[in-house]
Amino acid sequence: MSMDGPIYQRLMDGYDENDYDQNGISGERLAFRLNEIAKIGLTNDKGSNRPGFSEEELAVKSLVSEWMEEAGLEVNRDGAGNIIGRLSGSDPSLPTIMSGSHVDSIPNGGHFDGPLGVLLALEVVEAWKAIGYHPRKSYEVIIFSDEEGARFNGGLLGSQGMTGDYDIEELKKLISIDDLSFEEVLKSVGLSVESYEKSLRDFSNVEIFVEVHIEQGKRLEKLDLPCGIVNGIAGPYWLEVNFTGKAGHAGNTPMDDRTDALVAASEFITKVSKLPRSINDTSVATIGKMEISPNGVNVIPGEVKLFVDIRDIFKESRNQLVDTVILEAENIAKEHQVSLSYTKKMNNPPVPIKENVQLLLEDVLQEHGITPVRIPSGAGHDAMIIGKQTDIAMIFVKSIEGISHNPSEWSTLNDCVQTAHVLKGFIEKLNEK
Amino acid sequence: MSMDGPIYQRLMDGYDENDYDQNGISGERLAFRLNEIAKIGLTNDKGSNRPGFSEEELAVKSLVSEWMEEAGLEVNRDGAGNIIGRLSGSDPSLPTIMSGSHVDSIPNGGHFDGPLGVLLALEVVEAWKAIGYHPRKSYEVIIFSDEEGARFNGGLLGSQGMTGDYDIEELKKLISIDDLSFEEVLKSVGLSVESYEKSLRDFSNVEIFVEVHIEQGKRLEKLDLPCGIVNGIAGPYWLEVNFTGKAGHAGNTPMDDRTDALVAASEFITKVSKLPRSINDTSVATIGKMEISPNGVNVIPGEVKLFVDIRDIFKESRNQLVDTVILEAENIAKEHQVSLSYTKKMNNPPVPIKENVQLLLEDVLQEHGITPVRIPSGAGHDAMIIGKQTDIAMIFVKSIEGISHNPSEWSTLNDCVQTAHVLKGFIEKLNEK
Repeated sequence: MSMDGPIYQRLMDGYDENDYDQNGISGERLAFRLNEIAKIGLTNDKGSNRPGFSEEELAVKSLVSEWMEEAGLEVNRDGAGNIIGRLSGSDPSLPTIMSGSHVDSIPNGGHFDGPLGVLLALEVVEAWKAIGYHPRKSYEVIIFSDEEGARFNGGLLGSQGMTGDYDIEELKKLISIDDLSFEEVLKSVGLSVESYEKSLRDFSNVEIFVEVHIEQGKRLEKLDLPCGIVNGIAGPYWLEVNFTGKAGHAGNTPMDDRTDALVAASEFITKVSKLPRSINDTSVATIGKMEISPNGVNVIPGEVKLFVDIRDIFKESRNQLVDTVILEAENIAKEHQVSLSYTKKMNNPPVPIKENVQLLLEDVLQEHGITPVRIPSGAGHDAMIIGKQTDIAMIFVKSIEGISHNPSEWSTLNDCVQTAHVLKGFIEKLNEK
Repeated sequence: MSMDGPIYQRLMDGYDENDYDQNGISGERLAFRLNEIAKIGLTNDKGSNRPGFSEEELAVKSLVSEWMEEAGLEVNRDGAGNIIGRLSGSDPSLPTIMSGSHVDSIPNGGHFDGPLGVLLALEVVEAWKAIGYHPRKSYEVIIFSDEEGARFNGGLLGSQGMTGDYDIEELKKLISIDDLSFEEVLKSVGLSVESYEKSLRDFSNVEIFVEVHIEQGKRLEKLDLPCGIVNGIAGPYWLEVNFTGKAGHAGNTPMDDRTDALVAASEFITKVSKLPRSINDTSVATIGKMEISPNGVNVIPGEVKLFVDIRDIFKESRNQLVDTVILEAENIAKEHQVSLSYTKKMNNPPVPIKENVQLLLEDVLQEHGITPVRIPSGAGHDAMIIGKQTDIAMIFVKSIEGISHNPSEWSTLNDCVQTAHVLKGFIEKLNEK
C-alpha cells in the first residue's frame, strides 16, 4: 500500500492496530483510502478543493466506485451523479439499509468531512467480506453529489435529487461560481437536467439511512469519546433584521438627541445571546454577520443590518425562539425609537431522529465500551434531506478542537476505526430486527 | 449684481431686507458673494468640491482677496497660502483682532461651511466702510488653507502652519488623494515646504480670533435661534478597541461554550452609550465604525474591531470618560472571557473658551434681541488650532436640520445677516475695552 500522500503517515502514527483491527475491519485500509482521496484536489495549504460536480469530485467517485466493485458491490450512478453501491440481502422481502455521505468539499476544506462517512459505510462491507457475513437486508453505500454547495452557493443537490426535494425551475436559474448554468455544470460531468429529474427514488422500501460524519464541534473531545449519537438535526432559520435610526455627527449630536441604530442593535444582540438558554439547551442563536452604515468613526450609525441564525432540533422550541427573538427586536426598536424591519431568509425544519433508533445505537456503543452521549447536529447534512423520506441515524466522530471546513480538520484513526465497529455493529443489529 | 448661480435666489427669497439691512450690512452683498464662491468647484449635485491647495480653493482665495482690497484691506498671502486682509487700527499700540474661516470643502460639501465665516468677517469691514467707523484695534480677515483636509485626509494645515503646530518630517511623508507629495501639492499652488515653514506667526500681539461657523447640529434650530455662543471646542479622542473571542460554527457550538466577540462588543456598546450622561451633558461617546470577523451568517464572530469617538469641551471630564470607557471594556472582556486590546488613535485636547469672552458675546446677543445660548462644538475648527496660541471666540449659525458636509447644507440669509450684526457688535465691543 502507498505510504505517500498528505495524511497517511499522520493517521497511522499512534494507531492501536492490536486493539482495533478486529472482525475484518482494517485501520490501514481506511488510512490508505482517506489518503488516496486526499490526493485529489489537494490545495497548497494541504486542504481539499473538490467542488460539487467538478472533475475532482468525479475522480473520487470513480476511485471509490472501483473499491466498491472490488468489495463485491453492484455500482450504479443515478441521474444526479449519486453513486450507489448495492449488496443484495439474503432475504429480498426485507427493506434496504443505506449508509454513506459525500466526497465534495468547500474550496479549502479538510479530508474527513464527507469521505469518512463514505469510507466507513464501505468498510462495513469489507469487514463482512473478510469475516464471511452476509446480511439478510440489502445494504447500499451511497456517495451523494454536491453536499457542500461550493459550486452554486447552495448544497445538498445529490440528496435533493434523489428525494425530489427541489424546484426544477429554480435550479435552472442557478449560476455557478465559475459562471455556468445548472445545465452546463451537469453537462460537464456527463449529466443533464433530464437525468437529474430521473434520479428520484422510491424510499418506501428503505428502512433507514445511517450517516457517519465528523462532529464539527467540541463536545465529544471534551467528553473524550470517539463517537456519539446524534439526536436530531437542527434546521437553520435565518432572519435578516434592519434597525434604522438617524446618522449624525459624532461631535455635534448630544447623547439625548440620538437615534443610534448600533446602540439599538447592540442591546438586541446582548438579549438574543441570552434567549436560547431560557428555552432549552439544544437551541442556539447567533448573530454572525452585521453591516453598519455609514460606518465612519465620527458618524452616528444610521442603519444596521444583521442576520440571526436560529437552530434547534425541535421544531416547536425553535419556533418559540424565533418568535421571542422577533418580539425582543420589536421591544428594543420601540424603546430606542428606531424603525425595524425583518425578513425570513431561510427556514429549514429540524429533522428529528427516532427514539428507538437512538436506543439501538446506545446498545451498540455500550457493547463497544463507549459511553453513549446524545448530541444535536447544528449543521445540515444529507441525512437531513433523506430524513424527510425515511428514518435516519447519525453517528458523530470526535473532531479535534472542533475544527472543520479547514485544512487542519482532523480525527484520529483510532476514533475513526472505533466508529467503523459501531456502524458495523449497528447495521448488523438492524439486520437482526 | 448677478442673480445667476446656484444659491443666490434661494438666499434672497424670504430675506427680510427691511429688518436686517442696517448699519452698513447688506444681505444682498452677502448672498451675491456666497453665490459667487458657490460657482467655483460646483458639483453635479449642486454641492462644493474645493479640496485644500487646489485650483478651486486658490480661485476663491483670489476672488475674496479682490473684495478685501476693494473694502480697503491690505492683503497678504503667507507661506502656507493663508490670506490675511488687514485693516490697521487707529491705535497701533493695541493688539490685533482676527476673524475668518476657510474656503476649501470636502469632495461634495455645502456652500456655508467655511465661506460664511470668511464673508461675515469681511462684511464687518464693509459695514464699517459704509458707516464711517474706524476701529482702534487692527482687524484682520483670515482665510485659512485646507481646513477640511480632503487633499491629504488630514486638515487644518493653514492654521497649523500659522501656529507652528506640526512636525515637518511627518508632513513631508504625506501623500495626497491624487498621489502627490506634500511638496508637489504646495508647488502646484505656488508654495513650498520652505515657505510653509516661514508662515509661522507671532501671536503675542493678537488679542483674539473669532470664527463664525454653521452649527452642524440641530440645537439652534430646536431653540429657533439664529445664532449661539460656542462654549468650547471638544477635542476628539479616538480609541480603537479589539475584542477577540473564538470563531465557531453557529449550529454546532452550544451557547454555554462560546466566546462570541460580538456579544462582548455589544454589551460594551450599550454601556458606552450610557456613560457620557453619567458624567456631564457636554460629553459624547460614539461607536460609528465596527468590523466583524469573519462576518458569516453561520459563524460565531471571532473578532470585533471598533472605534470609540469620545469628545468633551472639558479636558478633565473627557479624560474621565476615556478612563471609564477603557475600564468598562476591561470589565466586559473579563466577564465574557474574550481578550481585549486597545490603542489611542487620536487625541486632540479640548479647547476652552474663556468665560469673559462668552459673557461679552452674551451682552451682544441680548442687545440684538437674541436669547443667548451656549453650545459646545463637537467638531474641530481652525479656532481649535489658533486657540492654543491666543483667546478665541466662536459663533454658531443655525444650520437647517443640522445637515453639513452635504450639498443640502443650508442656513437662511436672515440668520446669516443677524449673525453679521452680532459679529460686528462683538468686535466693536472688543474695541471699547
